[in-house]
Amino acid sequence: MTLTRRSPLPVLLALFLLGLLLPARLLGAAPAAAPATKAVEQWGVFELELKGPAEGNPYTEVRFSAVFTHLHRSVEVQGFYDGEGVYRVRFMPELQGEWSYETRSNRWPLTGKNGLFTVIAPSAGNHGPVRVRNTYHFGYADGTPYRQVGTTSYSWHHRDESMEASTLRTLASAPFNKLRMCVFPQDHGSDKAPPARYPYAGTPPRSWDFSRFNPDFFRHLEKRVLELGALGIEADLILFHPYGKIWNFDTMSAADDEHYLRYLVARLSAYRNVWWSVANEYDFIRTKTEADMDRYFQLLVETDPYHHLRSIHNGFNIYDHRKPWVTHASIQNGCAVEDVHSAQLYRDVWRKPVVFDEVKYEGDVGSRWGQLSGREMVHRFWCGTVAGTYVGHSECFQKPDSVLWLGQGVALHGESPARLAFLRRIMDESPVEGIEPVDKWQKPYMGGKAGEFYLLYFGHETPDSWPFQLYKNGVTDGLEYKVDVIDTWHMTVTPVEGLFVTRKKDNYHFLDAAGRSVPLPGREGMAIRIRKVGGQTVTPLSGPPVE
Amino acid sequence: MTLTRRSPLPVLLALFLLGLLLPARLLGAAPAAAPATKAVEQWGVFELELKGPAEGNPYTEVRFSAVFTHLHRSVEVQGFYDGEGVYRVRFMPELQGEWSYETRSNRWPLTGKNGLFTVIAPSAGNHGPVRVRNTYHFGYADGTPYRQVGTTSYSWHHRDESMEASTLRTLASAPFNKLRMCVFPQDHGSDKAPPARYPYAGTPPRSWDFSRFNPDFFRHLEKRVLELGALGIEADLILFHPYGKIWNFDTMSAADDEHYLRYLVARLSAYRNVWWSVANEYDFIRTKTEADMDRYFQLLVETDPYHHLRSIHNGFNIYDHRKPWVTHASIQNGCAVEDVHSAQLYRDVWRKPVVFDEVKYEGDVGSRWGQLSGREMVHRFWCGTVAGTYVGHSECFQKPDSVLWLGQGVALHGESPARLAFLRRIMDESPVEGIEPVDKWQKPYMGGKAGEFYLLYFGHETPDSWPFQLYKNGVTDGLEYKVDVIDTWHMTVTPVEGLFVTRKKDNYHFLDAAGRSVPLPGREGMAIRIRKVGGQTVTPLSGPPVE
Repeated sequence: MTLTRRSPLPVLLALFLLGLLLPARLLGAAPAAAPATKAVEQWGVFELELKGPAEGNPYTEVRFSAVFTHLHRSVEVQGFYDGEGVYRVRFMPELQGEWSYETRSNRWPLTGKNGLFTVIAPSAGNHGPVRVRNTYHFGYADGTPYRQVGTTSYSWHHRDESMEASTLRTLASAPFNKLRMCVFPQDHGSDKAPPARYPYAGTPPRSWDFSRFNPDFFRHLEKRVLELGALGIEADLILFHPYGKIWNFDTMSAADDEHYLRYLVARLSAYRNVWWSVANEYDFIRTKTEADMDRYFQLLVETDPYHHLRSIHNGFNIYDHRKPWVTHASIQNGCAVEDVHSAQLYRDVWRKPVVFDEVKYEGDVGSRWGQLSGREMVHRFWCGTVAGTYVGHSECFQKPDSVLWLGQGVALHGESPARLAFLRRIMDESPVEGIEPVDKWQKPYMGGKAGEFYLLYFGHETPDSWPFQLYKNGVTDGLEYKVDVIDTWHMTVTPVEGLFVTRKKDNYHFLDAAGRSVPLPGREGMAIRIRKVGGQTVTPLSGPPVE
Repeated sequence: MTLTRRSPLPVLLALFLLGLLLPARLLGAAPAAAPATKAVEQWGVFELELKGPAEGNPYTEVRFSAVFTHLHRSVEVQGFYDGEGVYRVRFMPELQGEWSYETRSNRWPLTGKNGLFTVIAPSAGNHGPVRVRNTYHFGYADGTPYRQVGTTSYSWHHRDESMEASTLRTLASAPFNKLRMCVFPQDHGSDKAPPARYPYAGTPPRSWDFSRFNPDFFRHLEKRVLELGALGIEADLILFHPYGKIWNFDTMSAADDEHYLRYLVARLSAYRNVWWSVANEYDFIRTKTEADMDRYFQLLVETDPYHHLRSIHNGFNIYDHRKPWVTHASIQNGCAVEDVHSAQLYRDVWRKPVVFDEVKYEGDVGSRWGQLSGREMVHRFWCGTVAGTYVGHSECFQKPDSVLWLGQGVALHGESPARLAFLRRIMDESPVEGIEPVDKWQKPYMGGKAGEFYLLYFGHETPDSWPFQLYKNGVTDGLEYKVDVIDTWHMTVTPVEGLFVTRKKDNYHFLDAAGRSVPLPGREGMAIRIRKVGGQTVTPLSGPPVE
């Protein structure tokens, strides 16, 4: 059908009808009386503050929310009471353009307030929240890849200002782009340095009014989350943990648990760098069951309008990460990342990103979980990376001051962080799709992107050379590759002279046409990177390879 | 309350009322007219044969079942049409004592038939069906442990009488107590030796009437299943597979799939040695989805009154074995059992028995999945065993006659079966609860029963000695252990002289009080067995160990 000599009549009619409808729509969204607020970045925070009732118990008696609307998209977001008669609602707009809002409440001063605001392009460094990408990997909402290099400091933000400032300075020059931290304080070390704030109204250790929050505690938490965000660090917030027995936060009723989660989500979900970790070592919380964990997850799905990443960290019993509310697996395992082929096994089980958040820690404490050498920590990161998974760091050095990074933050003493910064650079130069197993059932020491990119890691082996050989998927005769030799400990990348050109060897592999090997220095911790620089592109096989 | 001088009146009244009720109950269950049949063993097969309509399509038009009743227990079992006007219903009674039955049908000759029979104790060698036991292990219904040592021969029973008889002779002296086999024929090798029978009425390769079965095919299958049972071998029946494209059995409609499964379950579920494997390499069946697999599982749950073991075998994508209808994981993985610590990882994920049914095969074919050495096959079995999992064997030797055991059965040529018989002897001397990880996150090479029994396997390592050392769980000072050195390849068990007596070393381990090590011969494939023979029993820690 061609579009010539068309009558203008239908178009005019449509414009007329649109004219009838348009004012009504605008009216519903934003009456003329409402003032337009300042512009907000996409994935930034729009915050509305209202004065409301302070009498009674506003935490339990007042319902307060706002509906945010952009064209066809409408999102209801819960507000929260911030103490002293102040109510707030926070919103993270995920689309640019004009937005309107209207509040809802069971109290007159808080209901029916409305207005308009404009959502503009994100500023540099704002890539939006992290999402799952390509099944096993992560990416920011703006498309930038996110390659997780995590660390853990459970209670760094429950200390005094000076310690917390030190932690932030340390993080500013550390390689980590995710930090696991507990919302509730942990009791380890709290005899010497009790938490500066508690989440509930009342008196420590156990006289709490679980129906009333302490806004100062949460304002402080938010401040730290925002500061992490400014450093490019995702805050993986641990909602429950087994380390606070003295305060009874682990024995609250189901109703109090729900009240807490709803309040936390209302306050924090508008911050783009928030992740939810339902619990740490969930199975060590003897006062809760797996069904409780399911319920917390379901509540997050229901209440978080942005669907921030959700997972749960295990002690000895692994949670069922195939459950639909889990976005990625957050795993403690003491030995799975000791080699590449073990590290990749969980991928197939859950078909989600696998983050080995706890693989034992670098340190010198008496317990086996906190005495890895720096070399071993780095080794585990490389195993996990080449396996197409992600790894988490932490450390426990008793010297010099018994302040463990794992618990309190402040300073890093280990040898691994510098090498993890180097690894992160290598990851940043890897394919945006993420590193995938190339030939997964051959005791793999190689990952990458079939035909295009390969990362090999030899771990504790000390080969003098590696006979150049690529698995067939995505490869054909005559492709040209550049090869780098990487020392993961000494942090060097040494290009190998010349090009390697593929020639078919057998039904499985291609070798270098000139029969070249890659020379290696015969020490531990060596890796090889192979990048295609020439030759015809080959479409990798889809579906199961023909063996 | 004491029971003295009680009036006899209530007792007499109760007897009178019972007298009123009793005849009615008996009448409903078994009228005087019904003849009592011969006695049946517990877990044996009671079979009722009736003549009924042969006209029309009895497979689709006639409903026929029987309700079997013993005291409070009542089970409805589907019957089936066996051709030429003969209808049968088969029942495996799981309780000893008097049973009655009554048939139901939409045809007069098949409905309302009833009778009594007696279920007696099982004969020697009848241990009942295999069930899951202790979460990760198996046991027969009579309490006897079942330690799986499996093999696969997909189509051994689709051959001629002489080949099938050879297979049975081979199995009679082989170490295997489970055989994976396909119900539908597979096309590999069928050009030279087409299947002797097909499951449907019609003409090969593709003119089938999927609404009419070929009873002869199923009678033959049953005969072979019974013969395996007589050899103490569980028949792991594969219900769908991707290897029969030429016959179109993998493209049947959902209704035909269901018809097939119902017929199969009606015919075979009364045989105690049946396991259900929903599919082999299920994800390679491009004409079916994972949702189809779910449906097949659900149908088995619904139709199999005995709940025989249910699993599904994967190609490259692992099924979600946490789903409630899966009793155990049946895994293909080409490298997970190359060491102990990898082999144990899946246990934590599914919390069910893990059977590595396909770990590549011993053989000499050109494909990587069929060229393991005998040594490597035996190595994989030992890794899986010490990890608290189970492993499956098969072989693919092209010589001497291109009849591969994997596909056609007949004869075994490999070096592993003799060593697997030896392993099975070691397993039979292990704790009835099954071998469990002892210290799972320390790159384990040891499994057992804390404090009581340990099995260590060194794999490809070649130590000259092993410093005696036990993890603390279940151990205290002064326990006495006998130690055997096992050569897994040469099949020897060599006791080490004297006793090893525990003394605490540190927060994790106990050593021998005299500082003894276990001498080893410095070659591959060595194992150590440690059995407690004296000292005070220690209750192992329950719950997570305190690190």
